[in-house]
Amino acid sequence: MPRYKLTIEYDGGPYQGWQRLGAAPSVQGALEDAVEKLCGARPDVIGAGRTDSGVHALAQIAHVDLPKDYDAAAVRDALNAHLRPHPIAIIEAEEADPGFHARFDAIQRRYWYRIINRRADLALDRGKAWRVVRLLDAEAMDAAAQALVGDHDFTTFRDSACQAKSPQKTLDEIHVVRAGDEVHIHVEARSFLHRQVRSMTGSLVEVGLGKQPVSWVARALAAKDRAACGPVAPADGLYLVRVGYAGVK
Amino acid sequence: MPRYKLTIEYDGGPYQGWQRLGAAPSVQGALEDAVEKLCGARPDVIGAGRTDSGVHALAQIAHVDLPKDYDAAAVRDALNAHLRPHPIAIIEAEEADPGFHARFDAIQRRYWYRIINRRADLALDRGKAWRVVRLLDAEAMDAAAQALVGDHDFTTFRDSACQAKSPQKTLDEIHVVRAGDEVHIHVEARSFLHRQVRSMTGSLVEVGLGKQPVSWVARALAAKDRAACGPVAPADGLYLVRVGYAGVK
Repeated sequence: MPRYKLTIEYDGGPYQGWQRLGAAPSVQGALEDAVEKLCGARPDVIGAGRTDSGVHALAQIAHVDLPKDYDAAAVRDALNAHLRPHPIAIIEAEEADPGFHARFDAIQRRYWYRIINRRADLALDRGKAWRVVRLLDAEAMDAAAQALVGDHDFTTFRDSACQAKSPQKTLDEIHVVRAGDEVHIHVEARSFLHRQVRSMTGSLVEVGLGKQPVSWVARALAAKDRAACGPVAPADGLYLVRVGYAGVK
Repeated sequence: MPRYKLTIEYDGGPYQGWQRLGAAPSVQGALEDAVEKLCGARPDVIGAGRTDSGVHALAQIAHVDLPKDYDAAAVRDALNAHLRPHPIAIIEAEEADPGFHARFDAIQRRYWYRIINRRADLALDRGKAWRVVRLLDAEAMDAAAQALVGDHDFTTFRDSACQAKSPQKTLDEIHVVRAGDEVHIHVEARSFLHRQVRSMTGSLVEVGLGKQPVSWVARALAAKDRAACGPVAPADGLYLVRVGYAGVK
């Protein structure tokens, strides 16, 4: 049973999320359907990040065991053919060590949150960004965000449905930068709690709009209370952009 | 009858093109529907560029005469509200001189063509770019493209359905640049013939793939023969990005 590592891009819009759960459309389910068409078996496709409903990926990582040896490029091309018309694409397939585990071996996850800060509705980028109408102060957001870096109890920024054993996580980096009429948030950690990025983003937007002072984010974090969180940002603007493994790149 | 100048973004995918023609969905028709909901009348909305079926715009310019004076910001917001759920957005509305004509006064049109040069199908950018699988030599494409700059008979790069009186046009600029796994083509002229940008793009891709030498584009242009044109590039990757007027910006 050779193991393959897949790098996957997808538009999360049509899916309830990465994870297969019952009959609802999922990225994992679409991939498993494609694998079954390729090899007649239906092994699990295990992803590094269980992205939520509507969340996108530029480079999700997954692994799958196939019943026989295939050339890695042929796996990529065959899965892409079987995935049509799903907005899911295998960017790369590689033979992996049989012990490689896409989820448990990941030591770094990087997300990108894209805000379009303008008056007009989104047309070309509909479903691919969060439109915020009032002018955001990205510098204030970045200053407020730095309080989140480090090892903290992130209860405030954790969805009530989160199944992680502990709310303790280490945020390695967060940067908020303006690019023309867009505001981008880049975050990196070994792992995140459920809806942590969208909870942090929504809270930072409160600061960017001037509804809360810069110091409020540190206080919200210290409260360790879900009620202290700002509104949760929509899934549309969130992208999983990189999963890192020890000794790789 | 005050005249308004509109700056419009749209996803061309669902439309037969800018121009209203019978009952087929058009950007112009959707805008005229929204204007009618705003003011009860149905004046023509005149666009600077009659973009083809599936072609996008970041900043199409149009003008429209409304039956009474409205605040320009209110026109923008009301049209956006009435346009929903169309992927068409009024970025800006301004009161214009009564003599301003979006199409006839335009002295510069700039288009952007976006190629994603990779093996995998498009997922996030489906319908928003042209995927070319084999590696393109963007430098060769740029070198070949320079033969198109200047005043020429563009018969080779003109669709047979083109209604322009003359095939003579002046191309002011064309640049082909690689950006990671994308290849971007930027072109600027006072005006273009029907499908000229897509015809030039498809021909440049023949050079980028090594199917034709750099010198072939100059020869194709000199032939003044539609049969000398390469395959026409799909609409998906084409964006109208700027329309310029004398004395403006």
